Amino acid sequence: MILWSSPLTLYTRSELINKVAELFIVRASGYGLDSLRKYPQWELSNNELTRLLAKGVGGVILYGGTILDIKNRTQQLKSWSHKQILLCADVEEGVGQRFEGATWLVPPMALGLRFLKSAQEAIAFAERYGEVVGEQARSCGLNWVLAPVCDINTNPENPVINMRAWGDDPHSVAQLVCAFNKGLSSQGVLSCAKHFPGHGDTSCDSHLLLPILEHDFSRLEEIELVPFKALIKQGLNSVMTAHLLLQKIDNKFPATLSEKILSNLLRKRIGFNGLIVTDALVMKAISQKYSSSEAALMAFKAGADLIMMPENPDEAINAIVNSLSNGSIPIERLHQSLERRQNEIMKLNECKLHGPSDSFKSSSKIFEEGYKFSDQLINLSIQTNNIKLKDFKGAVNLIRVDKIFSNPFLNEFSPALSIPRSFGLDNIISHNMAPDIFNNDLNSPLKTNIFGDKKIILQLFMRGNPFVEKIYSKDFWISVIKYLQSESRLLALLVYGSFYVWESLFDVLDSSIPALYSPGQMSLAQKKALEYLFNENSSNEFSLTISNSEVEFTN
Amino acid sequence: MILWSSPLTLYTRSELINKVAELFIVRASGYGLDSLRKYPQWELSNNELTRLLAKGVGGVILYGGTILDIKNRTQQLKSWSHKQILLCADVEEGVGQRFEGATWLVPPMALGLRFLKSAQEAIAFAERYGEVVGEQARSCGLNWVLAPVCDINTNPENPVINMRAWGDDPHSVAQLVCAFNKGLSSQGVLSCAKHFPGHGDTSCDSHLLLPILEHDFSRLEEIELVPFKALIKQGLNSVMTAHLLLQKIDNKFPATLSEKILSNLLRKRIGFNGLIVTDALVMKAISQKYSSSEAALMAFKAGADLIMMPENPDEAINAIVNSLSNGSIPIERLHQSLERRQNEIMKLNECKLHGPSDSFKSSSKIFEEGYKFSDQLINLSIQTNNIKLKDFKGAVNLIRVDKIFSNPFLNEFSPALSIPRSFGLDNIISHNMAPDIFNNDLNSPLKTNIFGDKKIILQLFMRGNPFVEKIYSKDFWISVIKYLQSESRLLALLVYGSFYVWESLFDVLDSSIPALYSPGQMSLAQKKALEYLFNENSSNEFSLTISNSEVEFTN
Repeated sequence: MILWSSPLTLYTRSELINKVAELFIVRASGYGLDSLRKYPQWELSNNELTRLLAKGVGGVILYGGTILDIKNRTQQLKSWSHKQILLCADVEEGVGQRFEGATWLVPPMALGLRFLKSAQEAIAFAERYGEVVGEQARSCGLNWVLAPVCDINTNPENPVINMRAWGDDPHSVAQLVCAFNKGLSSQGVLSCAKHFPGHGDTSCDSHLLLPILEHDFSRLEEIELVPFKALIKQGLNSVMTAHLLLQKIDNKFPATLSEKILSNLLRKRIGFNGLIVTDALVMKAISQKYSSSEAALMAFKAGADLIMMPENPDEAINAIVNSLSNGSIPIERLHQSLERRQNEIMKLNECKLHGPSDSFKSSSKIFEEGYKFSDQLINLSIQTNNIKLKDFKGAVNLIRVDKIFSNPFLNEFSPALSIPRSFGLDNIISHNMAPDIFNNDLNSPLKTNIFGDKKIILQLFMRGNPFVEKIYSKDFWISVIKYLQSESRLLALLVYGSFYVWESLFDVLDSSIPALYSPGQMSLAQKKALEYLFNENSSNEFSLTISNSEVEFTN
Repeated sequence: MILWSSPLTLYTRSELINKVAELFIVRASGYGLDSLRKYPQWELSNNELTRLLAKGVGGVILYGGTILDIKNRTQQLKSWSHKQILLCADVEEGVGQRFEGATWLVPPMALGLRFLKSAQEAIAFAERYGEVVGEQARSCGLNWVLAPVCDINTNPENPVINMRAWGDDPHSVAQLVCAFNKGLSSQGVLSCAKHFPGHGDTSCDSHLLLPILEHDFSRLEEIELVPFKALIKQGLNSVMTAHLLLQKIDNKFPATLSEKILSNLLRKRIGFNGLIVTDALVMKAISQKYSSSEAALMAFKAGADLIMMPENPDEAINAIVNSLSNGSIPIERLHQSLERRQNEIMKLNECKLHGPSDSFKSSSKIFEEGYKFSDQLINLSIQTNNIKLKDFKGAVNLIRVDKIFSNPFLNEFSPALSIPRSFGLDNIISHNMAPDIFNNDLNSPLKTNIFGDKKIILQLFMRGNPFVEKIYSKDFWISVIKYLQSESRLLALLVYGSFYVWESLFDVLDSSIPALYSPGQMSLAQKKALEYLFNENSSNEFSLTISNSEVEFTN
């Protein structure tokens, strides 16, 4: 039996709605005009945003736009609320991952790989990584960075974590995320460890399906929880829940909706008293089974403080208001979550660094320094077998990319296209909506008569990507390499993104064939890769055995 | 023999440089940060821009960015100059053609076609077209719109003018461009008639090659000059020169560099005393033969007042300064051009409407009204044979687009892809860098075994596009239609863009096959087209015989 006093003795219904709404995060485009929204099905209109912020909604997650857009947008959203709102973004790999003009960094896994060679250097870079992300986020008006990813990528086929993780070893990941968090926190923005209790061992994408795991407590203690616990010990603002079913721990509810995982494990056993925020409730792992109001209510009951992106925020707010009003959830539960939110906001306000930098000059300096750091990380992370390209006349530059649209690294002027074009090569791009040139036949993977008998420079852009359902397997690409080698048609191989793909292909690659790997897929990485391949740049900045470069920063 | 007094008795060399620089237009990205430039090979860095504006450069042409970016950018550029600078853009088809978030309108040719049915209505729409472009340009801080295109598109194969023209008949084009100019001028921005003396009869792209024409004066008088003369009579701010060789009139120099065409024909014979501005001197029609300094000097001597986008502005300015200093050009020539520039700037300043609108609300109203107008024009210009789609299960939605990147109408969420996808169809995009599915063989135009024997919905996005060298010919597409019909595999045909292509394909199309044409390629046009095709929208807003809708505006 639960003891309760009616919350309506404390609040009017509209006051209660206002309080509950404070725990919700809704999604907006970084662009200030409705017509500029890239995902209008998910991004609320300005009318909806003003209405919901006036209703009391306490947070907004932002996607898209340039750094100028996002600076203006965060100011605009603040002006629509009477509260201090949380303004967050998924900028795990730098603010440039979501907002054009800011710095996009190599994926964290690159530093996980570096850690194997020089732990100290990798840790120093991870701290600087956090600083760069935090400084740029703050300068754009964001106050909450949804990073670091704390998942241990024990499953190389993980379609959604993969290179976003800081590695596959719990203890190195723990050190790296603590360093990242230190750097980030020094910049006066909040952090968020995700996805609790660990999303690194999954083989399906929770944007599309609910992953099911067999892990028990002892496995979690040994692997998944290590970085979370280290961060909590260090001091952590928030934890994001994972949409996955750990059936040995809670065979009914996914972690996001599980009291056993959020309240018993995270709050009580681990002792975390910061904010627990759900991952987006619109994701199919949740939304295909639970309505907005069911999911929000269950997550809140299970122990979540903040509710991210329910499909229908009004219904979700109402569901919690009703449960508080009829006493099925005690009002103290609301007060706890509001207090935790207030505590983190106080930390923001106490920090000496605050608010967006508004002078053009200081802002451009921040981005220049970020660019230099990105450059350093690219140099550090590129691997090559030190063979240069020869006799490429008449060859085809064949690029494989999973998604032709909405990818931030490939356009008409990308070095992956423009440099081969400048040497007279034809560019062909194979992608999810291009006419298919491959057979799903490991013995004959390339359709006959495609490109005649032309030689091929193969550039593969691939890494675990959310929302990409069908990709050719690693085995398929191994068969392509073997086939092209057997026909003496493979001139060079470049892999941008997944280390796992690179590792497997490098294994079967003839040692005489020029090959290069870059974890980063961005323009700058392509430029370095192709200048190296075409031998334009005589200085050899990187090789398979990377020298111990000094960690040197400009500020 | 020319009489002259040394200009150095009037000015110091640095004063003279400052005066000459005033006649130059340089190119900048609409984005405020160098790292956001899409075309860094053409768009000057902020360092270069500040230096050149301080040196006295009097104009900037802008490309790219959102309306928020461009508003900030125009303010920024003004702050870098001590003069009142000209801020222009190629926004012939609406500010949304270059700046995201503003309104993109159907190409002018759509109103040329409308003119054939209802001249009065087309003229009213053309005036409103000018108003919308002018109002949005001004609200973004631009003060000079490089429109209307006055070329008479007498050559249906014209690769660079085509749908940008207001028609192929001199007298209807004259009426339409005068209406456009009236609307534009009412908004307090300057206009520019282009490309003098007429670029409508060319079959090659002056971005890539110098077109050669056989027109003599009497032909020009009869066709090409008609709209220019009508506009000049009405009152016109500026004329842009064409990069083409009229060998019967000047067999040595392209119009841009020809004294016979600029001074003798345009100034003296026609009596135009506004600004003459060159088309961009970086275009290959000029730059492959003349250096920056040669071209700028020759254009200035020939009678141009303003010099657009020389590859090296410093060298070009120096060349004119030197010629003035050594007396080979009289200083009066400089004074004339400066005075003409000042006259037009005075007109800007006299207009009651000026400066960018800065309140969020008024600006969003401007764009909402523009959107409504765009919608009206799309409804007005779509043509269909009134047959609805049936039995499309298992069909392929095949899209042909000339350029996969940097086109503003196709992305992951474009209706051309998303609507067929929502009905379970596979999307395949054929483009300039996709694996080729076509044979250049009119008897067997589709590679065998592509798509097996699946039925096909064919969506063609094609219109004359600058910089697109190789496109399949109209005859090629006729053969594709015939082939697919003979195999009973053509489910529907949609053409977005070229009326000429539509006309030719419609001629050979079986009357039982659903078919639709939209001059506009934008998202809104796709949505209307596909909703119509998939019969989602029961109201039939358009048909081949369009009813005389009332011209109705919201303001």
